[in-house]
Amino acid sequence: LKSRLPAVGTTVFTLMSKLAAEHGAVNLGQGFPDFGCDPHLLDLVDEAMRAGLNQYPPMAGVPALREAIAAKIQTLYGRAYDPDAEITVTAGATQALTTAILCAVHPGDEVIIVEPAYDSYLPAVQLAGGVPVTVSMRFDERGYSVPWNEIAAAVSPRTRMIVINSPHNPTGTILRTDDLDALADIVDGTGILILSDEVYEHMVYDRQRHESVSRDPRLAERAFVVSSFGKSYHVTGWKVGYVAAPASMMAEFRKVHQYNVFTVNTPMQHALAGYMRNPASYLELPAFYQRKRDAFHAALMRSRFTLLPADGTYFQCVRYDRISNLSEAEFAQWLTREVKVAAIPVSAFYSRGKESRIVRFCFAKRDETLELALERLAQV
Amino acid sequence: LKSRLPAVGTTVFTLMSKLAAEHGAVNLGQGFPDFGCDPHLLDLVDEAMRAGLNQYPPMAGVPALREAIAAKIQTLYGRAYDPDAEITVTAGATQALTTAILCAVHPGDEVIIVEPAYDSYLPAVQLAGGVPVTVSMRFDERGYSVPWNEIAAAVSPRTRMIVINSPHNPTGTILRTDDLDALADIVDGTGILILSDEVYEHMVYDRQRHESVSRDPRLAERAFVVSSFGKSYHVTGWKVGYVAAPASMMAEFRKVHQYNVFTVNTPMQHALAGYMRNPASYLELPAFYQRKRDAFHAALMRSRFTLLPADGTYFQCVRYDRISNLSEAEFAQWLTREVKVAAIPVSAFYSRGKESRIVRFCFAKRDETLELALERLAQV
Ligand SMILES: CSCCC(=O)C(=O)O
Ligand SMILES: CSCCC(=O)C(=O)O
Repeated sequence: LKSRLPAVGTTVFTLMSKLAAEHGAVNLGQGFPDFGCDPHLLDLVDEAMRAGLNQYPPMAGVPALREAIAAKIQTLYGRAYDPDAEITVTAGATQALTTAILCAVHPGDEVIIVEPAYDSYLPAVQLAGGVPVTVSMRFDERGYSVPWNEIAAAVSPRTRMIVINSPHNPTGTILRTDDLDALADIVDGTGILILSDEVYEHMVYDRQRHESVSRDPRLAERAFVVSSFGKSYHVTGWKVGYVAAPASMMAEFRKVHQYNVFTVNTPMQHALAGYMRNPASYLELPAFYQRKRDAFHAALMRSRFTLLPADGTYFQCVRYDRISNLSEAEFAQWLTREVKVAAIPVSAFYSRGKESRIVRFCFAKRDETLELALERLAQV
Repeated sequence: LKSRLPAVGTTVFTLMSKLAAEHGAVNLGQGFPDFGCDPHLLDLVDEAMRAGLNQYPPMAGVPALREAIAAKIQTLYGRAYDPDAEITVTAGATQALTTAILCAVHPGDEVIIVEPAYDSYLPAVQLAGGVPVTVSMRFDERGYSVPWNEIAAAVSPRTRMIVINSPHNPTGTILRTDDLDALADIVDGTGILILSDEVYEHMVYDRQRHESVSRDPRLAERAFVVSSFGKSYHVTGWKVGYVAAPASMMAEFRKVHQYNVFTVNTPMQHALAGYMRNPASYLELPAFYQRKRDAFHAALMRSRFTLLPADGTYFQCVRYDRISNLSEAEFAQWLTREVKVAAIPVSAFYSRGKESRIVRFCFAKRDETLELALERLAQV
């Protein structure tokens, strides 16, 4: 069987989680919380199931959940999406991203991807028959940033889409209004679409705000905006996310969605709708994560790792150049095996690899977990 | 935005369910039960959630569930799939079907589809860049059958895959050993793969048996075999299904799966694993559905509809040529609006339409629901 994705192996997240388990390491690799969600959310799932809400929901998602999503976006970012025509509930953010790419990218179309990049974008473009065009983030003493001039230079008449991600996995950088201005200038007057991965939207620190693409009409009018309940509400295994987009784009998204997964788990959708009725469910998230970020940050400052700026996400990238000359993959494995703390090599987020002696830690963990990890990292 | 699937509209199932709701019709259209699942299955979801099983499961599925699936297939069909390498849990059967097509079909490859066909096969082939080659089922006084000689004639050097479906939606026919022999002869010595949609595997009537492709090594060695927990356990809204295939094919399936949905709902997977530990959970299903089928069948025999043979699925097709000259779509709408019983026109399962004055009823409904529908249908 000739492969459609010959370059694809098992994801680095799966590999590192497995290695962590084998070596009894604290798993700060794959991004998922080791604490539970609000038990009230579980009660709501239970209620929905016992009420018999276990059959197919509407294809685009349970109406109450789509309304709650629209209300959240309106509250936080000031854009009014029509819940009927402009919002679709997906089987996690990954399915939203892949479906957006499959519905919009025709064979031969180019898609610009900013690296380091979440590992699903590129194979999704290949599956669609598109051509990924990668641009590397700039990296200097102030950390990572998006080189808009290089992105402008990468645009061609065949460019169909630009994929952006803020807060950014794995670097923890966030896009600011001047970034969005630069992007708006690039796409102005073109037919280029934007796929905006905003799954870490509620994890932005130090009183900064998340510059959702949905805030900016110049971008929102041509954007698929993707988010994730799994990440926001600490239930990564529920696989519920969503996409918001103008009606004409959403119509194309749904054509693929209905033949890809058709619909998404009914009782979880009802539970999330009920949970979001209280805006505190999302308004309190930044403070919740800020506390974890600050504790992790402060303790790690006392180690021999050099912390990179981290304005968003639940990830912290660190340089280990004062500790080791190993490649990132080797260092992450050594850390897992010997120090018993798992991390993710940032090189795994580049299609052709790139060595900067940087690994990524996930701090969405219980205080005890982080303390144990920090104790071990302090020995390095 | 230029469409990747210009011919696609809203599925007939969604449209008819909406129309049924608008007109207060008994909905025998879209295939889903209106009764609940075993409450024990809900208890098991609850247990899993409260035990904190809400984060990402392994990419291929929760190991206990893959083992339970392998045990079921071994018990029922005598084939030993390796749960590690040969079984993957999917976000429903539709995702399994689409992912199997996306991973195996290269641009320009031909895929043979037998019509009437479930409506996701053809757009999935188009998304993959493949060329759908449709062959119509034979229809005569004994009902529908697969014309294997025509399928043999449709095979070309570019044929990559043949999609089969037994028990068959919408016709209710089942494949027998001579059908599988004919198929085995066609693919023998070729590189043609088989995609076998067996989501109604537990709904085979009158002491006949389900001839799973996994029973026949000549076919199983080249087949993706797809099934659905939603359909088997009356929880269509949970969106959990699976695919079984030889390891080399499964490796390709997983490459696409991990970038399409990555994983599937964790607590539901654990609950299903626990539930299947008791083989009665699937061994008792045929008798459960036989009773409904028989009651529906007997009552409908007293109406002016002509029943077609129905050996499997939870669907019953009927001819209405003694009642009306309307097209199938018009008749289904008239039934829904005026008689207040919704049905699905079989023409919707053909890519180019085909009128045989046949509509499909779903009898996976409570006795009261069926009785009310039958009362109304008796007036026609
Ligand atoms: C989808 S698997 C891993 C989770 C994640 O997004 C990450 O760790 O980067
Ligand atoms: C996936 S929607 C409809 C359910 C179904 O399979 C059918 O009615 O044929």
